[in-house]
Amino acid sequence: MAPSERQIQEQAAVKEKILSSAREMFVRDGIEAVSLRKIAESIGYTAPALYTHFADKGEILAELCRQDFGALAGHFNKLARIADPVERIYRIGLGYIRFAHEHPNHYRLMFMTPNLGKIAPPSEADIAAMNDPDQDAYAFLRHTVREALDAGRFCSEYKDAELLTQTLWAGVHGVASLEITHGDCPWCDWRALDRRSKVMCGAMLRGLLKNPDELEATL
Amino acid sequence: MAPSERQIQEQAAVKEKILSSAREMFVRDGIEAVSLRKIAESIGYTAPALYTHFADKGEILAELCRQDFGALAGHFNKLARIADPVERIYRIGLGYIRFAHEHPNHYRLMFMTPNLGKIAPPSEADIAAMNDPDQDAYAFLRHTVREALDAGRFCSEYKDAELLTQTLWAGVHGVASLEITHGDCPWCDWRALDRRSKVMCGAMLRGLLKNPDELEATL
Repeated sequence: MAPSERQIQEQAAVKEKILSSAREMFVRDGIEAVSLRKIAESIGYTAPALYTHFADKGEILAELCRQDFGALAGHFNKLARIADPVERIYRIGLGYIRFAHEHPNHYRLMFMTPNLGKIAPPSEADIAAMNDPDQDAYAFLRHTVREALDAGRFCSEYKDAELLTQTLWAGVHGVASLEITHGDCPWCDWRALDRRSKVMCGAMLRGLLKNPDELEATL
Repeated sequence: MAPSERQIQEQAAVKEKILSSAREMFVRDGIEAVSLRKIAESIGYTAPALYTHFADKGEILAELCRQDFGALAGHFNKLARIADPVERIYRIGLGYIRFAHEHPNHYRLMFMTPNLGKIAPPSEADIAAMNDPDQDAYAFLRHTVREALDAGRFCSEYKDAELLTQTLWAGVHGVASLEITHGDCPWCDWRALDRRSKVMCGAMLRGLLKNPDELEATL
């Protein structure tokens, strides 16, 4: 007998509960320290009950990565409509930091966890998604950087889209990750996250552009 | 009877062994998960034997912070001799990333650990050190940024030394921390760390300077 719609919804809700609790535990305790049994206990399940949803820890991690990288890419979909690639890079940067700030557990799992790819190796479909600007934030940024390169917008010394993408990524990752680890540190005299984000994205772009003055005209 | 020189050396060696093992465990397992007992076990000691050196976990963490922040500041001492503040900022950036790359456990404990300050609150002397450019890397960078500001080197829209320091720090932290968490990721087509470091420090500075062309003349 096929499951009823209610059963399907219940199953999906259980799966979501497992994933949400697992994400929190991976981030808090580290991937290595978390077992399927501990995840099951955290939501009042037995390990065998959990096995009906996920075969092992790697499968949970892989599903979380799929969801979280998908959520970040989805966050950027509306930015694809911005015609100017330089403005798009700027908006991607601000949007990236905002995503990290609003979803710190997602962000910590995706970008602040060592050895993630070793414990949850991506499938062939995941690897294909990594190269699709519609499904992956890095690919979307690189695609936009290439557009700006092709339009001759960067200084002539900057020709390598991968190197530029990695630098832009590192800049916004720096703002986002310091906010997560040190944002509530009482000994840091932090300026507002919004100002730090704008100075980072503005300064990096101005430093890379052939004509730095165009940034003010663009934004 | 006063301890002999050999006894003093032995005690110092034991203390160093405790600290080194604790740093590794804090980074690997998270601060919360590590107990004095586990640290003692890791070096074949009993917990009471360890208590003769440190009263509690917070004391070990505080001592590690003192050592590691001191090591980073010491790394920069020779840079104080560079006369030009803009060149000094550039060299601080490259040196910072190099330090992180050469001492990933120090770096992870200092800058990639949430809630460090809550678990090991700094003493009054530690807080005084935080504001001393000779003892603290952030203070050294901020001091150099102020010098460049006073010399009218930055764009007129950038007036706040704290905001500029936080942005420059975030840029190099981004490069350093992505290298630690994702540097050996087989799905990232990383450019050499040295190139990423130079593009980050160069682009940020050019983007902030009143006269971007002066950077090439300075370096």
